[in-house]
Amino acid sequence: MSGGTGSFGRKGVITIWHELTFSTRAAVDFLEITRELAEDLRQSGVQDGVGYLYIPHTTAGLTLNENADPDVLHDLKLALERMLPPSTNFRHMEGNSLAHLQASLMGFSLMIPVRAGRMLLGTWQGVYLCEFDGPRRRRILVRWVAQ
Amino acid sequence: MSGGTGSFGRKGVITIWHELTFSTRAAVDFLEITRELAEDLRQSGVQDGVGYLYIPHTTAGLTLNENADPDVLHDLKLALERMLPPSTNFRHMEGNSLAHLQASLMGFSLMIPVRAGRMLLGTWQGVYLCEFDGPRRRRILVRWVAQ
Amino acid sequence: MSGGTGSFGRKGVITIWHELTFSTRAAVDFLEITRELAEDLRQSGVQDGVGYLYIPHTTAGLTLNENADPDVLHDLKLALERMLPPSTNFRHMEGNSLAHLQASLMGFSLMIPVRAGRMLLGTWQGVYLCEFDGPRRRRILVRWVAQ
Repeated sequence: MSGGTGSFGRKGVITIWHELTFSTRAAVDFLEITRELAEDLRQSGVQDGVGYLYIPHTTAGLTLNENADPDVLHDLKLALERMLPPSTNFRHMEGNSLAHLQASLMGFSLMIPVRAGRMLLGTWQGVYLCEFDGPRRRRILVRWVAQ
Repeated sequence: MSGGTGSFGRKGVITIWHELTFSTRAAVDFLEITRELAEDLRQSGVQDGVGYLYIPHTTAGLTLNENADPDVLHDLKLALERMLPPSTNFRHMEGNSLAHLQASLMGFSLMIPVRAGRMLLGTWQGVYLCEFDGPRRRRILVRWVAQ
Repeated sequence: MSGGTGSFGRKGVITIWHELTFSTRAAVDFLEITRELAEDLRQSGVQDGVGYLYIPHTTAGLTLNENADPDVLHDLKLALERMLPPSTNFRHMEGNSLAHLQASLMGFSLMIPVRAGRMLLGTWQGVYLCEFDGPRRRRILVRWVAQ
């Protein structure tokens, strides 16, 4: 992960859009980014408000899910594969049509509640970058807003 | 449903994050929470802006859908089951792997437009807590922001 | 597309909720609306902040996806059909049960980052209205917020 330094606005008020980058590790990968986001939030100084995450890609998405048992991620991938088996009728020449749908199913943005300088995640919730056409370098746009 | 009283900030300006709790009624349940949200919005005094809903769980999600014909909810559950049949290859010991994926497919947050003190829902839209591993008690974080 | 004129608040500060309408072209249709949104943002005068899109329907959703190769949209429709084949067990009399689930899977709202008066979309990202029970006229609620 590499975050842009110096990209924040007035401390404790409103931050600007800035970018975090991550390297995914496999063709299909659920990469947890909770720790990097928590550190980014801490640097922003925002105490109470909302965090917006946005992924500017078409074959990767964002979601929340369990961060305790790695088997959950294994099963998520397995169930997604069974739900969407490969087809010989796809037209898109890049061969990554399913990745486009999987990304749309997960979604491209997240809204995270913030209170007392911390993300109000559930006990078992982690934030995941969902890679469906990797491995590659992926960008996430982040903004913490004190409202 | 039980809402926290005294959890709002200055009336008509910005509310703080607060929690509503709901009891789901079955293993898979689409519980409509529109009425409780409308009352919560009314109490906040916010007239124009945005409502944020966030569910801090990993086997329950949030969505909007038709609130007129209960058969729609029956069919939603049926189609989800057909789309994601049980598998013997799941590893997660709790046996609720599909619930994790179903929650991610629905999503964990909603943004609701607010105008004139009311949610700008469509004629047939209701807000639903989507339970996939119930019945249990579930929390939803809510914030109404006057912007 | 027809946008409401005179629906903006003080230029460059905060806009109010307003409506754009679109005519979809088929029973299932991914209609790109990026250009109309870019023009709407330009008129709002918002330079830096967030755009909220909300679709007040139950059989149409919103998503982002590739806007370069039209084959991607063809394949998205094909994969969705294979993932959710018709069933004889659906109860809802209108016969559009799958449309309800497909809309929930895509989602009913989008958050779009805005900087320097432009949507911070990825290189290949377009914004799509996802029609699952058309063709019809559909509404989208839009708000640009300078934060």
